[in-house]
Amino acid sequence: MFRTQTCGELRLANVGQQITLSGWVQRTRKMGGMTFVDIRDRYGITQLVFNQDVNAELCDQANKLGREFVIQVTGEVAERSNKNANMETGEVEILVTEMNILNEAKTPPFTIEDNTDGGDDIRMKYRYLDLRRNSVRQNLELRHKITFEIRRYLDQMQFLEVETPILIGSTPEGARDFVVPSRMNPGEFYALPQSPQLFKQLLMVSGFDRYFQIAKCFRDEDLRADRQPEFTQIDCEMSFVDQEDVLNIFEGMMKHLFKFVKNIDIAEAFPRMTWQDAMKYYGSDKPDIRFDMKFVELKDAVSGHDFVVFDSVPYVAGICATGCAGYTRKQLDELTDFVKRPQIGAKGLVYIRCEVDGSFKSSVDKFYSNDDLKAIATLFDAQPGDLILILAGNKIKTQKALCELRLEVAGRLGLRDKNVYAPLWVIDFPLFEWDEETQRYYATHHPFTSPNLDDVPLLDTDAGQVRATAYDMVINGVELGGGSIRIHDSALQNRMFELLGFTPEKAEAQFGFLMSAFQYGAPPHGGLAFGLDRLVSLFAGLDSIRDCIAFPKNNSGRDVMADAPSVIDQAQLDELNLIIDIKEK
Amino acid sequence: MFRTQTCGELRLANVGQQITLSGWVQRTRKMGGMTFVDIRDRYGITQLVFNQDVNAELCDQANKLGREFVIQVTGEVAERSNKNANMETGEVEILVTEMNILNEAKTPPFTIEDNTDGGDDIRMKYRYLDLRRNSVRQNLELRHKITFEIRRYLDQMQFLEVETPILIGSTPEGARDFVVPSRMNPGEFYALPQSPQLFKQLLMVSGFDRYFQIAKCFRDEDLRADRQPEFTQIDCEMSFVDQEDVLNIFEGMMKHLFKFVKNIDIAEAFPRMTWQDAMKYYGSDKPDIRFDMKFVELKDAVSGHDFVVFDSVPYVAGICATGCAGYTRKQLDELTDFVKRPQIGAKGLVYIRCEVDGSFKSSVDKFYSNDDLKAIATLFDAQPGDLILILAGNKIKTQKALCELRLEVAGRLGLRDKNVYAPLWVIDFPLFEWDEETQRYYATHHPFTSPNLDDVPLLDTDAGQVRATAYDMVINGVELGGGSIRIHDSALQNRMFELLGFTPEKAEAQFGFLMSAFQYGAPPHGGLAFGLDRLVSLFAGLDSIRDCIAFPKNNSGRDVMADAPSVIDQAQLDELNLIIDIKEK
Repeated sequence: MFRTQTCGELRLANVGQQITLSGWVQRTRKMGGMTFVDIRDRYGITQLVFNQDVNAELCDQANKLGREFVIQVTGEVAERSNKNANMETGEVEILVTEMNILNEAKTPPFTIEDNTDGGDDIRMKYRYLDLRRNSVRQNLELRHKITFEIRRYLDQMQFLEVETPILIGSTPEGARDFVVPSRMNPGEFYALPQSPQLFKQLLMVSGFDRYFQIAKCFRDEDLRADRQPEFTQIDCEMSFVDQEDVLNIFEGMMKHLFKFVKNIDIAEAFPRMTWQDAMKYYGSDKPDIRFDMKFVELKDAVSGHDFVVFDSVPYVAGICATGCAGYTRKQLDELTDFVKRPQIGAKGLVYIRCEVDGSFKSSVDKFYSNDDLKAIATLFDAQPGDLILILAGNKIKTQKALCELRLEVAGRLGLRDKNVYAPLWVIDFPLFEWDEETQRYYATHHPFTSPNLDDVPLLDTDAGQVRATAYDMVINGVELGGGSIRIHDSALQNRMFELLGFTPEKAEAQFGFLMSAFQYGAPPHGGLAFGLDRLVSLFAGLDSIRDCIAFPKNNSGRDVMADAPSVIDQAQLDELNLIIDIKEK
Repeated sequence: MFRTQTCGELRLANVGQQITLSGWVQRTRKMGGMTFVDIRDRYGITQLVFNQDVNAELCDQANKLGREFVIQVTGEVAERSNKNANMETGEVEILVTEMNILNEAKTPPFTIEDNTDGGDDIRMKYRYLDLRRNSVRQNLELRHKITFEIRRYLDQMQFLEVETPILIGSTPEGARDFVVPSRMNPGEFYALPQSPQLFKQLLMVSGFDRYFQIAKCFRDEDLRADRQPEFTQIDCEMSFVDQEDVLNIFEGMMKHLFKFVKNIDIAEAFPRMTWQDAMKYYGSDKPDIRFDMKFVELKDAVSGHDFVVFDSVPYVAGICATGCAGYTRKQLDELTDFVKRPQIGAKGLVYIRCEVDGSFKSSVDKFYSNDDLKAIATLFDAQPGDLILILAGNKIKTQKALCELRLEVAGRLGLRDKNVYAPLWVIDFPLFEWDEETQRYYATHHPFTSPNLDDVPLLDTDAGQVRATAYDMVINGVELGGGSIRIHDSALQNRMFELLGFTPEKAEAQFGFLMSAFQYGAPPHGGLAFGLDRLVSLFAGLDSIRDCIAFPKNNSGRDVMADAPSVIDQAQLDELNLIIDIKEK
């Protein structure tokens, strides 16, 4: 037996007991004739004591221990004279009588501490050492707890977890599919699933009623900051439900997670916001509503004052930054620079200071009188001491820029506290998006999303106005998941394909077996999927999903630790009937 | 709202209530002016009643319902005069007042019944309909329950579920790896994992202490009857453990599953058997010990009687079939034919009948006197009425043949009851297997398996005799899982690589980052993996793992429903820098 206890569990009550611990050497300190060694495992750290006067040989051995050596010690639990309130085991120490070095260790290339001296690259190369750090391991412990509680909740709600295949059919136009050559079927390829969408809808046709799966999904796209080629979805589908049923079940799931993972009780219903309102008031389909600071549209209020910037554009809107009237020129310049950055793209920033004395001072004083400014301030319900920030231009681009500015200002005001959670359902997404370039509609979600049945007449007259029965769950400005009620009526499905420019042949090629399945009695159904990586990141307060993935890949899709991907043997290529032909760039 | 209840929950207590159900039409029967419709969902079947005299129009509609139509009905729960004790809802029926056809259905190509008229091929093509059958769906419900209980148990035992990557590095000689071309890294490939072995050992180096994962694994090999290209493992690893710790934890897991899934309490410890004994007494490393019928070795007892068949071979052994002395000539011929089949390959079968009158009758009476036969019978502890069956030949082949004969006879005697479970640990596997052809040792498990430390001196003198600290869990003759204590000492590991013919370079290439990781303080660790598909099959009493997989592939690795794998677009091949070049056969 390697241990009687873990390094995290000894307390005053254990004083006097003979115990054995195993773990890693966190640190050693020599103080006079005494040597103190901190021994660490997943569960905690315990202080070991070696006394030169009691056992010189053992103490010498302890003095030679290197960082991260793996040791096993036996000794008596004693009360510490110098207690450490920051450690759970801080009231005791072990008077070691026997020590066994289980394994030596090379000095790690960075310190195994919460605040390590290792940079990103080296930590990824030695991910197995990085994972020893508490701060990293705790993210994965949280991930375990979240998935366990998701399963517990969904099991209670009679969902069945069903594994769908990873080796699936490649779809035409599936350019973002990873593919897998089949040795047994020469010249043919499997694809890895971007999501289990078709399979979960099939399971509804099969009468499974309530399905879920915590499923690996794959996407071969150029990776942006927070994407991984493989990612994990909490994928769910239900039969005989309308939107209200789905929202209730998954609002319940999120409350369950807050309660059992974060110990936060949320009694009230999650607010709901239409996509129209989200865009109008927040310039985003995933508004962060931890704080208010809604957009106020000003086009009418500011027009006709000979200020050409406002007169010449279709859209003018602003936000009110509470208590920021005192911002210095430097601070205002920073905000102006912020919105003028290429990725935001505003031309400039107009401000109105609502001075504490009730007067107004603005960057456009030339065009607007004090009364004009006061009238504008009234639209914001601005108070003395507040600062109004205004952008103007093309509607969609300006909304986006103002959204970024709102988040930036909120950040400066400390309104984006990671320990505050503001969940929200965004509903009534548009069913279609019009693409100017190709002059046609695309499905905002996917072609199986049901229109709001009230809007079906608009399909023929004004398709752009048709609302989908689609919904997203947003927390703190992060889209955690989304889904829709699916079309189960084949006439309506065919109408959708037509509007989306699918010929019957193309629809058959791409969704053939699902369309066939629907002919054998499809129930009304709907569902949604959550991004597990994002959910864990949100709960852990992380800036990147990478930090909650045990072995993540970098922005080139590489695992730098295992050095994957890599070349393979010619013999294997031959077996797969493949020749590599790298084009000159 | 589509329903107030499911089709499985109405009882006498609900009589008089107005309810709404949704589901599929299982069957309709017209009896005089009454029409009875069985409506089905995942939860059960409820009888609906339509009365021509009460609502002729509605009744006409009901008469036109086809099999598998999806309907929604509202009505009053009434007590049935003609109760059906075989149905949980059999005491009630619904007097329908409203009906809504949610979806029509083409007539399915086979009946949705436990005993369907559909053959294997058609059921796989229409797997989404096959999954509607209770008997199939119940296997997947069982699979859900088993995985849920596995997680519940391991969570209690402080195991963390950690997702390891699916896109990993390809290893040299990884001919059985599926590979995935990387678009972003031209000419390079990911591999899909055959198991998370390296990653779980890394997690032990990372101090995760107790890891598990219900993990998809992949193997591109020619598929035998009960193999799938993708399969699911319950993969586990623990630190600071010896074999005893691992066996205790996972024996506990299996008992937990028996209790919470099958409602079977197993109080006693699972028996343990050395690999040596398993081979000696059962001719198999996965003996079915639901019944005894051990091998008795007879070489000494039968030699020297001028029976050349026995005298000329190194190995003679038999089994005793209780109460089978009355077997007819035909039955004995059947057994002889059985052992002579090419896949078993025995030359013949010798029998000794222990007659009820105390005499003996044998196929080799010419060579053995009644007393000789009696002496042999005594070795088996055979009683009057028993039948002794004897095979002779090369030891290993004969053991295998006798093992098959034992199972065959037990089957005929009804000793292989699927509702009886006989778990067993097989331990002390040999560390190496000698390959005559290449004249070298191979690792019986994998190169990280630790030898029994008592046997380390034999590594240099008699490697074939070295026992591994490796163990398999066997239930009813099925190997459900296995594992080992790993080597954590790098000197011992290097010795192993040497014995296995790995040059340092080859070991580095194949296991490089694990070997590096081990230098930074590897704890003693060990683990095991269970085959989930086999475990579910065992619990469900299935003959094939395919029946507990939602969307299985056939023996050519094809999903016949989705028609995968398939050809992909030239554009995608170009993006992947690949040319297909199918060789002439």
